[in-house]
Amino acid sequence: MDHYHSITGSITAPKGFFASGIYCGIRKSKKDLALIRSEVPADVAAVFTTNTAQAAPILVDKAILRSSSKCSAITINSGNANACTGEQGMRDAWEMIDQTAIALGIPREEVLIASTGVIGQYLPMHAVREGITLAARSLSAEGSADAALAIMTTDTAPKELAVTFAIDGVPVRLGGIAKGSGMIQPNMATMLAFITTDAVIDQSLLEQVFRAGVNASFNRISVDGDTSTNDMAVILANGCAGNTCISAGTPAAEMFAAALHDLLLGLAKMIARDGEGATKLVEILVTGAENDSAAITAARSVANSNLVKTAIHGEDANWGRIIAALGYSGIDFAPHEVELAVNNLPILGKDFSILIDEHLVKQTLAGDSVTVHIDLNQGGGSATFWTCDLSKEYIHINASYRS
Amino acid sequence: MDHYHSITGSITAPKGFFASGIYCGIRKSKKDLALIRSEVPADVAAVFTTNTAQAAPILVDKAILRSSSKCSAITINSGNANACTGEQGMRDAWEMIDQTAIALGIPREEVLIASTGVIGQYLPMHAVREGITLAARSLSAEGSADAALAIMTTDTAPKELAVTFAIDGVPVRLGGIAKGSGMIQPNMATMLAFITTDAVIDQSLLEQVFRAGVNASFNRISVDGDTSTNDMAVILANGCAGNTCISAGTPAAEMFAAALHDLLLGLAKMIARDGEGATKLVEILVTGAENDSAAITAARSVANSNLVKTAIHGEDANWGRIIAALGYSGIDFAPHEVELAVNNLPILGKDFSILIDEHLVKQTLAGDSVTVHIDLNQGGGSATFWTCDLSKEYIHINASYRS
Repeated sequence: MDHYHSITGSITAPKGFFASGIYCGIRKSKKDLALIRSEVPADVAAVFTTNTAQAAPILVDKAILRSSSKCSAITINSGNANACTGEQGMRDAWEMIDQTAIALGIPREEVLIASTGVIGQYLPMHAVREGITLAARSLSAEGSADAALAIMTTDTAPKELAVTFAIDGVPVRLGGIAKGSGMIQPNMATMLAFITTDAVIDQSLLEQVFRAGVNASFNRISVDGDTSTNDMAVILANGCAGNTCISAGTPAAEMFAAALHDLLLGLAKMIARDGEGATKLVEILVTGAENDSAAITAARSVANSNLVKTAIHGEDANWGRIIAALGYSGIDFAPHEVELAVNNLPILGKDFSILIDEHLVKQTLAGDSVTVHIDLNQGGGSATFWTCDLSKEYIHINASYRS
Repeated sequence: MDHYHSITGSITAPKGFFASGIYCGIRKSKKDLALIRSEVPADVAAVFTTNTAQAAPILVDKAILRSSSKCSAITINSGNANACTGEQGMRDAWEMIDQTAIALGIPREEVLIASTGVIGQYLPMHAVREGITLAARSLSAEGSADAALAIMTTDTAPKELAVTFAIDGVPVRLGGIAKGSGMIQPNMATMLAFITTDAVIDQSLLEQVFRAGVNASFNRISVDGDTSTNDMAVILANGCAGNTCISAGTPAAEMFAAALHDLLLGLAKMIARDGEGATKLVEILVTGAENDSAAITAARSVANSNLVKTAIHGEDANWGRIIAALGYSGIDFAPHEVELAVNNLPILGKDFSILIDEHLVKQTLAGDSVTVHIDLNQGGGSATFWTCDLSKEYIHINASYRS
């Protein structure tokens, strides 16, 4: 893909978008509230967690999107998920919506919210109220980095990307920020991600390419197999680029979908690489599966195996654990047909033949990226998953998260 | 259950059973080969791993049991799983069978084998051959402790139990040894377990109560969610007690089933408590589910959640992570209906109401046993699962297992 190129500014790179990220006291220190603003109502598409226990902000956003297809602002807080908070949590979520609408002078139907952090505690609404006012005053076209920082929880680095490309000679832009870390499991919208674009694009096409993009990116990463109560991914398209409307079945639509896919995948990989305690980004490629669905199941099983992830952490090319994880994945395959390559070095041939001295492979595992290619030799299905290694630091973070 | 009482001697407590555990050089040090011998051919029942990638000893045992229902000896090695070893592995497995038959002067159809340890390496057959000869010479009615030691891999303690009870005044005995640790996930036979009894019992009843007992014990424990290529559980019934034959539908059958269930569950809990790096045995009880199957799914999801397991390790009553794990389990339930108790202290009521200061709960989490009771308030289904906490030591063990 070289029809687009990277630019700075992430969510404020597209025209007509402003952002801010401030500290308001939800957390002990660190920015904890972000605001994303489009100067004109933007078309919106969103995907939400499939977890049955959905947090208040998820329920409120879904209620809003049932009757509204435009969005002008998104308020996001970190430090508190407003999940499992019952009626009080719902009131707090609606108040976040109303406060944002008032602070910006826009209809409440044009506001969405998101929360991330500890489950089961009420939002400190005094802090949130003041925070929204401050965030509204702080909005700027250079605010994307602050917003990316404010949505972080146990992330060790902010996640921002933007690209630009031309539609019939008119430049359009796509930008995004995301946060991830714990509880990242492929299951429809697996973290928080906020994407903006100034492209003019058909609303139903936007929805379709966003959903497809999320499925091929955020739903293909895994940190610990847990799916959160709060995950969501949203895209706002405000049309400020003034291009000819991108409609389905055109080269422009393909170009937009490809750029969006790569942007989403770029953010997803940043999340996988920054999994709690992670030291390596691990790419699991399964080919030769009976079909794509079997390939996804197989790749997910390997990506979620604690034993595989700790072996990679220990820089041990323990292919036996990979075969075991394939074996209990539930897919139909013949173990002795499997061929395996790690970091492009073929290590296992058919009939479990060892193709290379493991120590040569071990040397390549010292790096911060690992690729595992599993060829099942059963058919034409393939899929890629991204995960991270499992380290002692993961335990440290999650055993002491609330203290 | 007080119709039976505990005795020492585990697998050699029942009459007519002998065992040994010796060192033959498969591992660097530590006993690595065990032999269990019945002086008369015993009825046998067995359950094997559901993993598609089944190790050579599993395939060989299944082949033998297709035509034989009697077993006189089981040879078990640790240090090498003889899994993913192709044709050579099959030849080695058959040779283990033959060597055992020759050493004991019994038909090969009366021998079973099991292996546990590293995947993907050939057995050092020179060591195994000598080991079988030595183990046969070392058989004794006091050999159970040695056998329990010899089958251990990363276990920190041997797992042995035996009970006795009377059938119409005639004492019968049941004994067992097991090994577990990593890769323990409920999915039909989840580790190695060898059970002996001198009871006279109808063969098909033996099969039925053993299968039911394994389902309610070994298939209800979880260490890391991985299912091994080598797991198996076997029971031998040699009839040496001389009791009236136990047949289906009698009080004796119920008594035998209950004693066997408790013995299996006792061994299963030892395995869960001794999960790699574990510091706590965690019991997850789900009640009020739509049905038992939903309860099992819910309990398994909580038991397998890295986030729940690390929270318990950190002695943090983080009930939000429990709700989240229920939420992505796939069962149908209403999150706000859930009630939660930890160590018998009710902490969460309906509508996410907090019933107790968490710090009171935290104090009780310092112990080495934790119970989590989840009432879904949806119906009459219930299930219990056992797991352990997830510690940095788990990572240490599994990142460096082969070095």
